[in-house]
Amino acid sequence: MPAMSENRQILIASLPTGQLAASDYELRAAEVPTPGDREVLVRTLAITIGAGQRAGLQGSASYAGAPVTGIVMPGTGVGRVEASNVDGIAVGDIVVGSTGWQDYAVLPARDARVVDADVDPALHLSLFGTNGLTAYFGLLEVGQPKAGETVMVSAASGSVGHLVGQIARIQGCRVVGVSGSDAKGEVLTGRLGFDAAVNYRSATFRDDIKAATPDGINVYFDNTGGDILGTALRRMAPHGRIVCCGVVSQYDTSDPAPGPRGIPGLLVNNRVRMEGFLVFDFADRYDAARQQLRTWLDAGVLESVHDEVNGLEQAPAAFVDLLGGGNVGTRIVRIAG
Amino acid sequence: MPAMSENRQILIASLPTGQLAASDYELRAAEVPTPGDREVLVRTLAITIGAGQRAGLQGSASYAGAPVTGIVMPGTGVGRVEASNVDGIAVGDIVVGSTGWQDYAVLPARDARVVDADVDPALHLSLFGTNGLTAYFGLLEVGQPKAGETVMVSAASGSVGHLVGQIARIQGCRVVGVSGSDAKGEVLTGRLGFDAAVNYRSATFRDDIKAATPDGINVYFDNTGGDILGTALRRMAPHGRIVCCGVVSQYDTSDPAPGPRGIPGLLVNNRVRMEGFLVFDFADRYDAARQQLRTWLDAGVLESVHDEVNGLEQAPAAFVDLLGGGNVGTRIVRIAG
Repeated sequence: MPAMSENRQILIASLPTGQLAASDYELRAAEVPTPGDREVLVRTLAITIGAGQRAGLQGSASYAGAPVTGIVMPGTGVGRVEASNVDGIAVGDIVVGSTGWQDYAVLPARDARVVDADVDPALHLSLFGTNGLTAYFGLLEVGQPKAGETVMVSAASGSVGHLVGQIARIQGCRVVGVSGSDAKGEVLTGRLGFDAAVNYRSATFRDDIKAATPDGINVYFDNTGGDILGTALRRMAPHGRIVCCGVVSQYDTSDPAPGPRGIPGLLVNNRVRMEGFLVFDFADRYDAARQQLRTWLDAGVLESVHDEVNGLEQAPAAFVDLLGGGNVGTRIVRIAG
Repeated sequence: MPAMSENRQILIASLPTGQLAASDYELRAAEVPTPGDREVLVRTLAITIGAGQRAGLQGSASYAGAPVTGIVMPGTGVGRVEASNVDGIAVGDIVVGSTGWQDYAVLPARDARVVDADVDPALHLSLFGTNGLTAYFGLLEVGQPKAGETVMVSAASGSVGHLVGQIARIQGCRVVGVSGSDAKGEVLTGRLGFDAAVNYRSATFRDDIKAATPDGINVYFDNTGGDILGTALRRMAPHGRIVCCGVVSQYDTSDPAPGPRGIPGLLVNNRVRMEGFLVFDFADRYDAARQQLRTWLDAGVLESVHDEVNGLEQAPAAFVDLLGGGNVGTRIVRIAG
């Protein structure tokens, strides 16, 4: 725990040209900042790390803009307000904002969203944060699953995927999860109610997908791109929908692979729709979505799985591990209690 | 002109393993068939040839089913009824059906659609046939263009493409056509009202596309796949739509290329929807579409361009030439007057 006068920060030290390494970051101790007019000072309680953040280090290919070094690693966190110059935000409030990877952050009023204090703060970074909203709108609005249909999701034990599968189950769909280990698969089927799990590292991966989707795939929620997408394309049922959410297979490299064979031919033959989305486009409906997610959580039909790490200084290694597929659920770095 | 007792037929002699050749067909003289109960005998007046028929020779990759040799080359034709055992169809009626490549065909009642006799019969194979309906539903229903948007179409001087561009122009869109020669480009801009034409064989092709789409592409109607699709993907405006209609770049080969790079990443970043369709799914709305197309034709705002060849025996060479990009508009083989 740092002294109140110290603000530990994790800086981007170098931009990765191939795989990300923890050494691409460095820890610095700075002064705790002072909030200005219409700003709050927050003590960061926890941050979340998602694979999509890797794209932010990748240059022009990302929606996040061009990356630079020497800045605090950006990211979303939840914190307790320590000082406030904002009407409507009080000391002690819990807020979510772009804290970055640091002990203390000054947030402008428009970037400090006061959230319920009656749940684990980490939930505001997972189920009620971008991950949960991405799963919700991507599956329901872009994928439009119907009861009885087969929904397959890749990176199924990941921060978004494990929620996608559960929401699909709630819709009455048959749910198949693709993940990178049998242990993850057991979490999916044993704990989260998936109907089947497939390990993409298995030698029989393509046959396993076939066996798990006897009627084809109606909705494929793609978090990976690459080979899994290529395999899913060949299993799509007529009028199937592919929800393009992320490309984790391509983030951690500077040499993206070609697209899957069969595009666009397979899309034509099976009348398949493939659609990319960014959750921000649904911002005006976040509140209603959070309400629905909270209802499901309280009813015990939806679980937000967290994969927690303790200590700000662990964040770089936790990010590298995440990109290697080490997490189950949303990766949370707890920074303070 | 054959004797009335002779029915010239063009048979599939061999299935192409690489590029199609005229020698994959052979001409045979058979008896003129006799219609049975609920059948009609038609004298074929004209047939149409489309690039999509190449897929029918390709094996399992096509929606048309597995191909065989020794049969009359299948295809749609328009003919005059010579004998009828069908209530509601009279001798002299003009009908459209699956005549195949032959002088005479027996059609069952369900495959003989009586059409207006007051227009050039070839129009029933182009504007009022599958080509026109494909352009109509693909652009309007799948692409959903709005006035002021930029619509780009590949194989733009082809049977579907030249209609897509004109319908987009009628919707108030900026229309860019991609074709394989400057001469075709001049037909598009000079005769059919396209705003710009780009030659994909030009060394400056990618820059030419950029220059022709200063605000990006809102709707890309893809008839080709391959490099043109890859280039279009990089020019898509946010929330753009890619209508996957055909894959002419991939039909005439047994070794399909990988899909375009940037799938699915570019779809996510720009929230692009990519959707394959088959026109048959819109069958219950064909009549309304034909009525609208006829209105535009009569008003002089839409032209159906035909690229005509005379003589059944010319059909194989005309097909090979079509796959090489030789046609402008719908390829029609006139067989009888």
